[in-house]
This record gives sequence, C-alpha cells and structure tokens, in this order.
Amino acid sequence: MPKLIFVRHGLSEWNALNQFTGWVDVDLSEKGIAEAKLAGQKIKQANITFDVAYTSVLKRAIKTCHYVLDESDQLWVPEYKSWRLNERHYGALQGLNKQETADKYGVDQVQQWRRSYDTLPPLLASDDPSSATHDRRYHNLEKRSIPGGENLKVTLERVMPYWQDNIAPSLLAGETVLVAAHGNSLRALAKYIENISDDEIMNLEIPTGQPLIYELNDNLSVEKKYYL
Amino acid sequence: MPKLIFVRHGLSEWNALNQFTGWVDVDLSEKGIAEAKLAGQKIKQANITFDVAYTSVLKRAIKTCHYVLDESDQLWVPEYKSWRLNERHYGALQGLNKQETADKYGVDQVQQWRRSYDTLPPLLASDDPSSATHDRRYHNLEKRSIPGGENLKVTLERVMPYWQDNIAPSLLAGETVLVAAHGNSLRALAKYIENISDDEIMNLEIPTGQPLIYELNDNLSVEKKYYL
Repeated sequence: MPKLIFVRHGLSEWNALNQFTGWVDVDLSEKGIAEAKLAGQKIKQANITFDVAYTSVLKRAIKTCHYVLDESDQLWVPEYKSWRLNERHYGALQGLNKQETADKYGVDQVQQWRRSYDTLPPLLASDDPSSATHDRRYHNLEKRSIPGGENLKVTLERVMPYWQDNIAPSLLAGETVLVAAHGNSLRALAKYIENISDDEIMNLEIPTGQPLIYELNDNLSVEKKYYL
Repeated sequence: MPKLIFVRHGLSEWNALNQFTGWVDVDLSEKGIAEAKLAGQKIKQANITFDVAYTSVLKRAIKTCHYVLDESDQLWVPEYKSWRLNERHYGALQGLNKQETADKYGVDQVQQWRRSYDTLPPLLASDDPSSATHDRRYHNLEKRSIPGGENLKVTLERVMPYWQDNIAPSLLAGETVLVAAHGNSLRALAKYIENISDDEIMNLEIPTGQPLIYELNDNLSVEKKYYL
C-alpha cells in the first residue's frame, strides 16, 4: 500500500522577524531544527521506512528532510530536490515585514494576498537584484519560467508536473515517499490529493514539524489520513 | 575546465575505539563534524561552486557531504548516493579492535590485510547477522553482488562503474563535481585518475577533511592537483 508522508519545515530565522519569505533561502531557526528532529523521531517510533525523499531547493526544507532521515536512521535514502516544491513565491513582498506591509497597503489587501486562492502579490521584476533569475540554482530554467510572484493557483500549477512525473510514479510503484517542503507547496499537493475546492483550500493549515501520513490505494485515492 | 573535488570524511565514532569499520554505518564524531564544516568553509573561500555531489550510502560520508554543501551555501546542489562509493568492506574484521586483531592474527598478517593491494580479509558470511545482505539499503542488490570482504583491488572494481557511468560523464560535461567519500573508495579513484601502480597505491594517504582538487583537461587527465 503506497504511503505518502508530508513534513512541513518548522520555524525559520525570518519567522521571528515576521517577514514574507517565499523563495528567499532563509535557514531554519534553532526551534525549526528541534521541530525537524522531533518529526524524525516520530517517524522512527512509527517504524516508517522511506524508499525515496523529495524536497525543494531551499535549505529550510532540505535540512528538515535531512534531520528527518537522520533521526530515523535512513539518511541513505535517495533524495531529490526540485524548485517545483519550493514555497509560494511572494513577489515584491519577499523580505518585507508583514506589519509594515499592512501599514503600507492596508490590512484588507494583505489579507487578500495571503488568503485568496488566485490573487497575485505585487510582482518582482526579473531584473531586480533579488530576483531568482540571478540565482545559480535556477540557471537551468529559462527566465520566463521563473516566477516573479505566485498565488496558490500558480503554485499548484508548477507543483503538479513534479507530482505527475516523480512523486506519483514512486507511489504507483508501491513506495513509501517523504515530501519535506513548505506550507504552500504541501497545501497545493493536499488540494489535489484530497480534492479540496478553491474556496476551502486556504482554510487548510498543515502544522509545522508534524508528519502527515496519507495511506493511499492503488489509484492514489486517500484511504486514511492522520498526523503522527 | 572540469574540476573534481574529493573530501574524505573525518573522524568517526569508531576511530576513537580503533575498530575496523568498513561498511558499518558509524556516525561522525564531534571532531569529524568540525572537519567537515572546515572543509566546507575552505570550499567557500576558494569560491568553488559545485554542479553535482556524489557520496556513499554511509552516514559519515553523507553528513560530510551535507556539511560541505551547507557551509559553502549550496545545499541545493543535486546529490546522489551509491553503495559503490562505500568504504572498503573489511569482512569479518569489521567491528574488531585493531589491537585485538593484531594479538589474535599477528601484526604481520594484520599489516598485510591493511597494506596489501590484493589480499582479502577474512570474509563475512552472507548469513552472518551483521552481513549487509540483511540491510534494507542494499535490497536492490542481489546477495551475490554484496561483498563479504574486499581488498583495494576489489574496491576499485566496484567503484569504477560508478566513475564511468556517473562521475566521468558529469566531468565530461564540464561540471565541477564533489565526491564526499572514504579513505579507500577515494584511494581507488585516485589510483585510476593518477595512474598509480598497484605497488605504489597503498602509500597514498588522502588526509581527512582536506578538500583535494583535481583540475582536469577534456580527456580527464590531471592538469593540476592540490589540497585546499
């Protein structure tokens, strides 16, 4: 029976600062490291043995992946990193303090950027010095494929090819799969897997550091869903 | 110009105990962690940017790989793990104290096992409880492909296919390649790359935690070799 395990990374160094993070490669905080280790210990206690692990190209997710694998003594498991599992790109809001943003644009506008399924944030220009177009890790992507800002709808559209071509094939082969990623890339996958509507999805909050287990049938429909 | 960087993992928890380790999945010691981090800092100072990283399926090499990538801020680089980069399998000597082994078999015999290119250690039976045949990480290998003990010659024979099919193609594509591995798997690769004779190779000692850089030409011949 295929099994899919989500682990959302814990607190990063920017959470304390209350800043929009998105694709900025912020490190885990001490608390985030502790959350990841605890997740790994729960995985070990539950005797979950992975066949493969998928993560993003952002270190807070990659390190979460490593801590989970290490604490459950399976650091040798094959691991694949993709930009498609990155956090939602928060456009020109990245690096801004959430309170300052609310003061500047108004609470309602910020609420809409955060809670609407299909409202885009203000975009980051591709020639902005902080644009991902200047980042070596994305050098295999055309400039026009690199987002300047995403809503959850767009996030889901770029996550789905990775599900179809990598995660789903692993599950269809009967494997147990770890996905260590971000609030919104995991939310996008959950929307697809659980058939959640556009209206409902923004209410789904996957807690950090708590392994979420999906037991699936051969068609990858959910038989059972629970947290460790 | 293709560049190949070796990092040999540092002190493991068994070094202090003076035990034969081989394929036993022993963790890095605190000192080994510090060595790996320092290697990563040197890589960063030298502005070396990797395109791909290869390591073994043993955690002391995998963690060394992770520390090197993290300290040089390139944890997102694709990483591949293979049993072919494992340490030399030390057969039935694995887990034995080197002094006890010398007392039992004689200093000369132990010296020969350690220093001869083609003398096999006493083999570990495949039904021995500590045999790698019972280890989930090798479940994709036939039992008869899993060694019960190796000399450097046999180690080289199982490392070479990985060189040919994975490491060399990356280099031929002009990439900068990290190999984070073990004393003997790196020694085997060095023997091939540098055309070192069977007699000479056992004198080559790659120091732990010191990045070894090979600058290669288009035929993967060594143009320059140095340590950071």
